[in-house]
Parts: sequence; structure tokens; C-alpha cells
Amino acid sequence: MSSSYGTNLRVTVFGQSHSEAIGVTVEGLPAGHAIDLAALQRFMDRRAPGRNAYSTPRKEADVPQFLSGIKDGVLCGAPLTAVIYNTNTRSGDYAELATTPRPGHADYTAYVKYGPSRDYAGGGHFSGRLTAPLCIAGGICLQLLAEKGITVFARIRSIGTVQDDAPFTASVGEKDFPTVSDAAGEAMQAAIAAAKADGDSVGGVVECVVLGAPAGLGDPMFDGMENRIASALFGIPAVKGVEFGDGFAAAALRGSENNDPFIVENGAVATATNHCGGILGGITNGMPLIVRAAFKPTPSIAKEQQSVDLTTLQEKKLTVRGRHDPCIVPRAVPCVEAAVAIAVYDAWLESQKYKEN
Amino acid sequence: MSSSYGTNLRVTVFGQSHSEAIGVTVEGLPAGHAIDLAALQRFMDRRAPGRNAYSTPRKEADVPQFLSGIKDGVLCGAPLTAVIYNTNTRSGDYAELATTPRPGHADYTAYVKYGPSRDYAGGGHFSGRLTAPLCIAGGICLQLLAEKGITVFARIRSIGTVQDDAPFTASVGEKDFPTVSDAAGEAMQAAIAAAKADGDSVGGVVECVVLGAPAGLGDPMFDGMENRIASALFGIPAVKGVEFGDGFAAAALRGSENNDPFIVENGAVATATNHCGGILGGITNGMPLIVRAAFKPTPSIAKEQQSVDLTTLQEKKLTVRGRHDPCIVPRAVPCVEAAVAIAVYDAWLESQKYKEN
Amino acid sequence: MSSSYGTNLRVTVFGQSHSEAIGVTVEGLPAGHAIDLAALQRFMDRRAPGRNAYSTPRKEADVPQFLSGIKDGVLCGAPLTAVIYNTNTRSGDYAELATTPRPGHADYTAYVKYGPSRDYAGGGHFSGRLTAPLCIAGGICLQLLAEKGITVFARIRSIGTVQDDAPFTASVGEKDFPTVSDAAGEAMQAAIAAAKADGDSVGGVVECVVLGAPAGLGDPMFDGMENRIASALFGIPAVKGVEFGDGFAAAALRGSENNDPFIVENGAVATATNHCGGILGGITNGMPLIVRAAFKPTPSIAKEQQSVDLTTLQEKKLTVRGRHDPCIVPRAVPCVEAAVAIAVYDAWLESQKYKEN
Amino acid sequence: MSSSYGTNLRVTVFGQSHSEAIGVTVEGLPAGHAIDLAALQRFMDRRAPGRNAYSTPRKEADVPQFLSGIKDGVLCGAPLTAVIYNTNTRSGDYAELATTPRPGHADYTAYVKYGPSRDYAGGGHFSGRLTAPLCIAGGICLQLLAEKGITVFARIRSIGTVQDDAPFTASVGEKDFPTVSDAAGEAMQAAIAAAKADGDSVGGVVECVVLGAPAGLGDPMFDGMENRIASALFGIPAVKGVEFGDGFAAAALRGSENNDPFIVENGAVATATNHCGGILGGITNGMPLIVRAAFKPTPSIAKEQQSVDLTTLQEKKLTVRGRHDPCIVPRAVPCVEAAVAIAVYDAWLESQKYKEN
Repeated sequence: MSSSYGTNLRVTVFGQSHSEAIGVTVEGLPAGHAIDLAALQRFMDRRAPGRNAYSTPRKEADVPQFLSGIKDGVLCGAPLTAVIYNTNTRSGDYAELATTPRPGHADYTAYVKYGPSRDYAGGGHFSGRLTAPLCIAGGICLQLLAEKGITVFARIRSIGTVQDDAPFTASVGEKDFPTVSDAAGEAMQAAIAAAKADGDSVGGVVECVVLGAPAGLGDPMFDGMENRIASALFGIPAVKGVEFGDGFAAAALRGSENNDPFIVENGAVATATNHCGGILGGITNGMPLIVRAAFKPTPSIAKEQQSVDLTTLQEKKLTVRGRHDPCIVPRAVPCVEAAVAIAVYDAWLESQKYKEN
Repeated sequence: MSSSYGTNLRVTVFGQSHSEAIGVTVEGLPAGHAIDLAALQRFMDRRAPGRNAYSTPRKEADVPQFLSGIKDGVLCGAPLTAVIYNTNTRSGDYAELATTPRPGHADYTAYVKYGPSRDYAGGGHFSGRLTAPLCIAGGICLQLLAEKGITVFARIRSIGTVQDDAPFTASVGEKDFPTVSDAAGEAMQAAIAAAKADGDSVGGVVECVVLGAPAGLGDPMFDGMENRIASALFGIPAVKGVEFGDGFAAAALRGSENNDPFIVENGAVATATNHCGGILGGITNGMPLIVRAAFKPTPSIAKEQQSVDLTTLQEKKLTVRGRHDPCIVPRAVPCVEAAVAIAVYDAWLESQKYKEN
Repeated sequence: MSSSYGTNLRVTVFGQSHSEAIGVTVEGLPAGHAIDLAALQRFMDRRAPGRNAYSTPRKEADVPQFLSGIKDGVLCGAPLTAVIYNTNTRSGDYAELATTPRPGHADYTAYVKYGPSRDYAGGGHFSGRLTAPLCIAGGICLQLLAEKGITVFARIRSIGTVQDDAPFTASVGEKDFPTVSDAAGEAMQAAIAAAKADGDSVGGVVECVVLGAPAGLGDPMFDGMENRIASALFGIPAVKGVEFGDGFAAAALRGSENNDPFIVENGAVATATNHCGGILGGITNGMPLIVRAAFKPTPSIAKEQQSVDLTTLQEKKLTVRGRHDPCIVPRAVPCVEAAVAIAVYDAWLESQKYKEN
Repeated sequence: MSSSYGTNLRVTVFGQSHSEAIGVTVEGLPAGHAIDLAALQRFMDRRAPGRNAYSTPRKEADVPQFLSGIKDGVLCGAPLTAVIYNTNTRSGDYAELATTPRPGHADYTAYVKYGPSRDYAGGGHFSGRLTAPLCIAGGICLQLLAEKGITVFARIRSIGTVQDDAPFTASVGEKDFPTVSDAAGEAMQAAIAAAKADGDSVGGVVECVVLGAPAGLGDPMFDGMENRIASALFGIPAVKGVEFGDGFAAAALRGSENNDPFIVENGAVATATNHCGGILGGITNGMPLIVRAAFKPTPSIAKEQQSVDLTTLQEKKLTVRGRHDPCIVPRAVPCVEAAVAIAVYDAWLESQKYKEN
């Protein structure tokens, strides 16, 4: 364990890259809410591969089929299960990986943990493909949050060494390549193309903002919004760092620079700046919640790499086959939104317990 | 909720800065292990305030008293509860804070969440003082891990803009001001002194390494070592970012740079480099586990700041009284070790379930 | 929530009686164990309807299809998901139940809890059909326990007023109608037939024994074997009481009668009697673990009953249509074994954490 | 684990019979509610020993001291911890028990589970004394439920073979010996006195009713009210059976007898009878919730018993010393109320999550 997330809402992801199907069960969804399945599919499509030059040529329809929990398009209160059948798999690409782990992948650690019976094909349960069910759950949470006026959207903040430091704009979410600065976006795509041309890959940073979240979400210590969101985000393969507000940059500041002065705005308490990313003491303060996740470069690269034969314990060279994204960051954008939406909706449900008190 | 952490081991922290006592209950500790209480106290002392020029002049003995779970110095299998009575409190320092939240603190969000009944004195349950019971639990886990050859120690990696980029050495843990480079350490102390002289504060980064952890700790998706450790670390007040291995820097790399080649060393699989920080797919690979936590500057500063009167909704000036650290990073070092130790020991217990299988 | 059970093993049941499919996800299964799928199917068949005169004439193949978690018949460490597609549903039978709750059923309480969007067809998520996925999970746990020499089997202890008080025998599990006394079994079948002839139903008691469980399973207070097993058993629809050892009868005894004297048997500690049902302080003592579950009579009966129209709040008469068991106790026998096996295996995993200590 | 209960509210009990203190931490209590500490103490006093002829002559003040979570008598939102210091212990009474387990007690199983380091004095963490902190938590929940018009009270239903089958009356809660029928109560006290005179003990059944609970509390499958309440009740030492409504008696009924006809009463849906004990499909239906717990006779009796020396594995005779209740049922009445109140309040919090939806 645990492929489950959440305490008020519980999202359980199952499946392996090449198993019969992948899917998700969500317990705790509120009955009576209509889900816009077409909108959900559009959200899923943002994650789907094969859409452009910088993603893997694999084509995956990634159309969720609902086994339970939804009736005539409306949540019925029972656990919701949706699956995506795996149809376009080429397991032959992975035969060598049974004994030779790919550097940077979970191949070796899965072998240590589960032994030779683990499903190595396509990365098994550790495959980035498992973010598809995460997006089903997250896409539903996004719709439930939107009903309450809470929106979650993300942008590409950097690819390799190319930064997009322009301030967030809501319209970024509608772009195919979601950067605020189009110039930065083009430079990023060039960086991806260059890495691909070299048989290499490149990492990046996704930044996500939550607007409209009421003050008071999140709980002390281990259930603060930072803990909750980080727990969800590190569930996305390749995430190696998570920061809120100014994050690591805040460590270089003085208190007088980093503290956000309280002001009164439209008759309500607000802050003049937002270095804290909308979270104080783990609890939302009503300002935009801002989080960034650092993605390492895709470990599957075309270049020959050094590995080890697990059966002979001899070092050997490995050339990874199969079809891989030179940069998963663009496809990770909706995954970040999904993870954050699940975390925020779980915290929102928690906050409801005490409304009547 | 939740002031509890862990699934195999459950650590529940209670208390407010000025309540009768603060403390911790730990369920799931293994019976039969002797705890070196003197060593635990030395560990606690590293966190205690009042020891030097750059920490608050408050003197807190911070001596845990054990109410249960330990008998004749040996864990007996029952839940362990230890408390520290609050004796040296000056609540008068905090009277104004009943209506005027300190910028950068949880004062405002606690008020929104819990209403006027929340305990604002000294920051209540959100006080950094609550890291003392965390250190009791973590100090015990450190000893249990040490029995298995697993050691956890941390260093100051940066204070403000001063970095200590020297490679980790084990002896850093024995220093009063735990930097590898003494020159960097002196520059950091000067940065703290300068901030203090300005009535200001400064942040920093703590880096922690886990040595001797076997490959195979951690679980997929939401219970990976990154999720587990981040969940614990964000429980320490002021942490705004957490990263593993190269972390955010990995986002700027190419796969060929970031992937750690597998090699055979002393007849075992190892990696030639350690960009991943000892974690692949959420699971330890047997290399040193490396994590960094970014601490924002202490929000309590002597400078006058802008706040709001919560009863009148008028903006007003606030000068925070009380005794505060100009930089909490030095005292946070053992807290980081404690949080990481708890997370690693919880994962270790998890891994034991499948040993016989 | 919660359609999930377990802390070391987590079993999540999903589906509604008439949804696309029902199924189960099991997290925490140990990798490397071969599952005997034919044996699992035989176990499932014991629960399946339509096999004889005293069960519903509905025919349900109830053949699990594995979507994930198992590869070439061997557990691979990833979450296991198995589904059973719903094919033989006659929703028309249930149209009236949209507004008229069946007495003794969850129809009314599901309406109150989830509103008009709840899936009422066939009882929705509250249907006894959901015990099929429970049996998939339980059937796997039975096999894993058997590897360790732990066996779980149940018998019919009573149907209506007919008791089978003969001492447990292992061979009872092989019978089609699992009573120890064949005479009692025949009288029970006659009682079921009589109830059916009257358009009525009848309840009963299932008794389950766990043999071979080592002393030391279970935990104090809220995770004792009684708590764990009761939590699982009350997950089976129609269970209204659970007792261990002498159970309610023990309340009428004196301590000198109820205490089980300790003896030495084959060089090990045992007890001369087993009034406690193998559990002391929530922890197994190495003697047979004995538990009984009381099943109320099937609420769906052919007789006209009094109900209420939920839309008009007028009382009205209801005649339940559809195909229903006059007694679910015989089919509940494997369900009890499944629930107990899951609870015991979860406790066994817990106990492994401290083996090395 | 687990000495913790609850998902929305989390109650963690700590302490051993002879440790420095016993106590409880409750997370998730709503801020802003005043707690009537005098009423809480009166509730605690109902459990306290030494009050009359049929309980142990030990005198324990059992006055909770609040370490955190409450300020000026009002819940402040932080985890509440209350402790009772152990002052009146006579550990010498227990010296022989280090090697000789008392029949019917957890002495042996605690030894198996935790080894020689377990705290055997007074039963350690398995002592009935641990119900005192349970009553602190439960007493607070009773007050919170009362604010919502939900009341919980229990009666003695039987002692030994003496039954009190008179219908429940609210005033039973005010009696020193809470039976409805005074004649039955006198016969029960005579049965206790007779057992005591024989150096023996006797068991009994406590029945608890919850009035005013709204329809809709509880969740499907493993979080039904039956599962929730049984999980809490089996946390009380000596409980060996739990049943709801007609419970085991329902197993002997026909559906036409056991189904509760729906009626309209005061413009609302009700049932004409209440065989189901107010719970259908795990969810409250608005009728009185009825549960019974069977308590085995106190295992500590004055009569000589057969045990085993754990160090030599030789059988030996044991005469239990110390001061023990000949019947714990009267003192268990508030414990049952406490456990039920905690379970109901936890379910109530759960139900609040979906109020706004």
C-alpha cells in the first residue's frame, strides 16, 4: 500500500501498464451531482498521449467506462469505479526489462520489493499510464469544486532551463501548450524537440493555482494543505519536489520580505502580497493557493545507458525500446490539476463537518 | 484533524503553546526495546531554545515525562505517552493577538477555522513549540532505526542567501551549528545576527540524509517515500517546500544527466550517481536517501507590521512582542531528523509485513 | 464511506446490483503467491444463487474477471481488481421501489441518505449481491491463510428455530448444506421450504471456526480480533448480531464456569475449555477461534406488506416482486468465511511487523 | 495498534493500570462548545469503583485533568488530552502474575504478543481501568450529541440468569442500579452478592438506546452503524457479543414477523415496530437505535484456579489476589454509553460532509 488517497474522499487507483485494464474507485462522492461526461473526456484528452510532436506516438483513447457509482450521468452515492481497458500495448518492447532495470525507473526497486513476480511490462503499476485513472477522479473533483466556485488550473512554469515567469492568467488553461508567455512556450517546445533529436529527454516545473477556495480549508500539522497536496502530487511519477508560495525561494528571504501584510479588501481580510501561497499554518487564508511540482526528465531515453543484469549481477548496456515522451511535463499539467483538485475537495469535505457546530 | 501521522506507527501530537502541557502518543512501538533516555534528552536539547545567541532567550527544559508505554526504560507494547509541562509562559505578551493576527502566522487562519474560542496564546496548537513532542517520537524512532543500522542526520544547507554546498559528512551532526563548511556556518551565523539586529528574521534550508536504509522501503503512488516524508516534514511549522535528490534542479536536467546508471558494487546493485536521492518509484534503492526542506523566515519579527483588527475589520499596525528566534533553522535540524525518522520507521514496519511471504 | 475494510490489507467493494459490474480491489496482497483460480471459483460457487430449491432461481455465473494485480496466476504486488459483470438483471421488477421502500430493506435509509439519485434497482450498493466481490477477496485470503496452516470454515448453526448443536467437524465444509447433524440439516431445509410455501422467509445463525491461528494475533482495544471480525461481518447484509466463544450465553455464567483453565498440552500452553472462543483481551490464544453471526430473515417476501409512498407520504400496500431467497443463510456460509478470512489475514499481516524486533 | 477509534473524531486511549497515568486524546472535536465539567464528572463517577457493595473496594477519584484542547471550559479546536494519574495502585498484588497468567484474562496473550517486557501489573493496557479515559471521551460526545437532541442511555438487561425485560424508560438512567424493574434489580444484586460470597463472579448484558438520532446516519458495508458501534463496544474489556434490535432472536423469526412495516406518523415516515433496532442497511431510520452488549463474568475471582507457569511450562494453581468486582456490569453501563456516543458522534460528523451538497 498505498494506491489510495484521501480520508473523506478515498481514491484508489489500480492497474498495470499492460494489465487487462487500469482504473479508479472513488468512495465518498456526494450523491445527486450530475457529471458532465463530455467535459470530463476533454479533461482526459489533455493528458492523453499521441496528440502532438512532443509526446509519445502511442495512441490511447483513454475513454473511461463507468462500472458503478453513476446512474444516468448523476452520482448515486455508491463507490464510483471507472476503468480504461488496455488495448494498445506492445509488451514485446519490454522483454529485456525483465532482467535489466532502466536507470531512473522503478524497475529495480519494484523487483526488490515484489520479486520476480512483479509486472515489469511497461513499468507495471509504476507506469505514468496510471495517471489516467487519477485524472478521472480528479476531473470529477474539478467539476464538484467548480460548483462551489473553486477553480484549479495549472501551467508549465519551466521546461529544462526555459522559464515562463509571466504572472498567471486564467486563459492559460485553454492553451494546447499552457504557458502564459507564448515566446517562452515556443522556446520550451524547441527544448523538447532538441532533447528528442538527441535521443534524450528533459524535465520541467508545473505550477498550479486554486482560486476561490474559502479561508479555513486544511488542518493542523499533518493534514495541512501542504501535507495534503504534497501527498497527492508525489503520487504522480517523476515528481521530485513540491513547494508552496515562494517555496524554496522563501528560504532566502527575510521575514519582513516574506510576511504578507494583512489588509482589508472589499470588506474582507486579505493580504497585500501572497508569498505564503494562500496557506498559513496549513490552512487556506482565502488568497490564491499556489503550488509547484518539479518533474524530473523522463527516464526512458533512446540513448544507450548503463544497467545491470539482475540475474547475473553483471553490468551491461541497455537501450530502452518502446515509445516514450521526450518530456512528460505538458501531459502532466492536467495530472497536477487532478491531484490538487482531489486534495482540495477532500479538505473541503473535511471542513463541512463543523459547519453546523 | 490531523495531528496524527503514520499508519504502522501512529504519532499523535497534542497541546498548545500555553496549555497545561504538550505531548505525544505513539502507538505501534515494538515491545522489548530499551530506550536510552539520556540520549533522547540530548536529542531534545538540540531543539531546545535559549542555548545561544541566535535562538529565543526563553528557557524551556523540555524534559519529557513518560506517562505510559515504557517500563523500567523498556518499551512495553502499550501506547507510549510523554508530556512536557508548560511552565515558562508569558501569555500577557500575546493579549493583542486575540484580535490582531500576526502576518505570516496561523493566527488568522486559526481564527477563521475555529472561531474566537481557538487558543491564540503563543500560537496555540500551531506553535513551533509543538515540534518538541515530535522530537520525542522522532528521537525514539532514531534509536529503533539505529538498531537496524539505519542512521538519519541533517545539516543546515543554507541560511538566507548563504549556502553550504560541501558534500555531506557524518560528523556534521555533532556540531553545535551543523554545517559541513565551517566558513559557511560562520557566514550563516552572521546573517542571523544581522537579521536580528534589524529586528528581522531569515529563512533557510535543512538537508537530511538517511544512510543504511535497505532497498525496498516505501510503497507505490501515495505511500512512496517522497509522499511519506513530505507528509511528515510539512507538519513542521514554516516548511514551504520539500524536494528529494536533485529535486527542483532535476527539472532543468536532461534524462541522460539525471538518470543514475546502475552498477555492481561489492556484489550488490548500486548506482554510480544519486540524482534520485535514493528513491525510485517511491521506493528506496539502497543508496543514501536525501531530502531538503525549505523553511520560511520566522514570521514573528520585531519590526512594525501591517495587520487587521478582526473585530472592527480596520487595518492597524502591529508590533509583535514576546521572545522569538531570528532564525528557526538551527533548531529545526533535529525536527527534520525526527520527522524523517518517523516516516522511515513507519515504512520499515510496513515492509516487515511481507518478509515471511 | 466506507465500502473499504482493513488496515494492512485494504478491500474495497464497489458496484450496485444492476450497475455495469460489481467488483473488488484488494491492496496489500503479497507478491509471488500463486492463486488457485479453480479453487477460488469453487468457493464462489458456494455463494452463487440458483443452485437448489432454497435459493433464488436467478442464475448468476459470478465468474470474476481479473483486471489487475495478478499475472500468470501469481500475485504481482499491485492492487488486485476483479469484476463480475452484471448480465442477468430484470430492473423492471424494481420500478415500484423507486417510491415505495421494502420493509426491512435499506431502500428507505438509502433514499434518506442519498436522495432520489440513489440507485434503488435491486437494492443498489446495499444488495446481497455485493457479497460476491467480498467472496473474491475472502477466497484469496483463505488461500493465503492456508499456506500458513490457518483454515477457516463455517457451518449453519440454526435456521429459524431449528438448531444444530453437534460439535464442529472439519468435514462440514464439504457438504452442500453445511450442518454437522444431517437430521438437523433436513429439518432446516424443511423450515425453509415451509417459509417459502407461505410466501415468507426465515433467518438463522452461521458459526465459523478458525483453526491453526497462532497465539498473538489481534491488538488491544479497538483492533482486537472481536472488533476486527465484527467490523467485517456486519458488512454482510442482514447480520444483526455477532458473538465470540460462548458470547451472550457467557453473560449468564459465573467466572468459575467461564474462565478457561490454562493447561500444558504437547509442551505448549493451551486451555482445557474454550469458552472465550480463542480470544483473550482481543488477542488469539492459540485455541480455535469461534464466532457466530445472526442473520435476520430475508426481508424480501412474497406476502403483501405495509409501506409508504415516499412522494405522497401516504401509507400503501406493497407486494415485492423479483426473485428472492426464502433464506439466505446457506449462501451466507461462504460469505462469513470470506469476511473472517479477510479479518484474520489483516491481523496476521499486522503481527508480522514486529517479528524481527 | 489500535488503541484509537474513529475516522472523523479520533479517540486514542493510553496508559496502563499501574503506569504514571492513563488518559485519552480526542482529535476532531468542534471548537466553540462549552463542556459542562461537573456533568462530565458525574458521568465519570457512575463508572468509578468503590461506590457500593458490588464493586471493588478500590477507591479511585478518577478526576480527569485536561492538558490541552479546552480553554476556559470551551473546546478550542486543538486535540484534547485528559489524564488521570494513577495513585492508588498496589502492584505487589500482581507479582505472581508476571509468570502465571490469570485464566480468562489477557495476561497470557499479552505475554505472547509483547514478551516479558509487557506491563502485567493490574492487567497493564488491558485493564478495565482503561475504560475511564474512554468515558472522558464518551462523556464529551454525550454532551455534544445532547446539543443536537440526541440522547444515549443504557440499562442493565440481565445479570447472570436474572432478566429485566421491562420496556426501556428514560428514567432508568438516573438510578444507582439502572434496571427498569426494581424487582429485577434487587434480584440481580442478590445474584452478585451470592457470587461474591462464593468467591466467584457473574456476567450480564447491557442494553443501550439512542433517541433522537436523525435518519441517515451510518454508511454502507463496513461503516454501517452496526460495524461502527460494534467496533467501539468490543473495545470494552469483557464484551463477547453485540447485537442490534432483535439481534440473535431475529434469526429465529420469519420475515413477516421481523420486517418493520413503514407507517406515517406526525407527517413523517416511521415504522410500526422496531425489530431492526433503528438500523437498515447500516443506516439509521429515525427510530430508536437499540444495541446490547454481552459481558462475560469478571475473570478475576477469589477461587483457586488452574494456570501455568510460563517460565517452567508447568501447570500450577493460582489464587488471584487484589481487589476485583464480582460483577463489572453495573460499572460497565456508562462505558457502553460512552462507546456508543463516540460511535454515533463520529457517524454524525461524517453525515455533515454532505449537508451542503
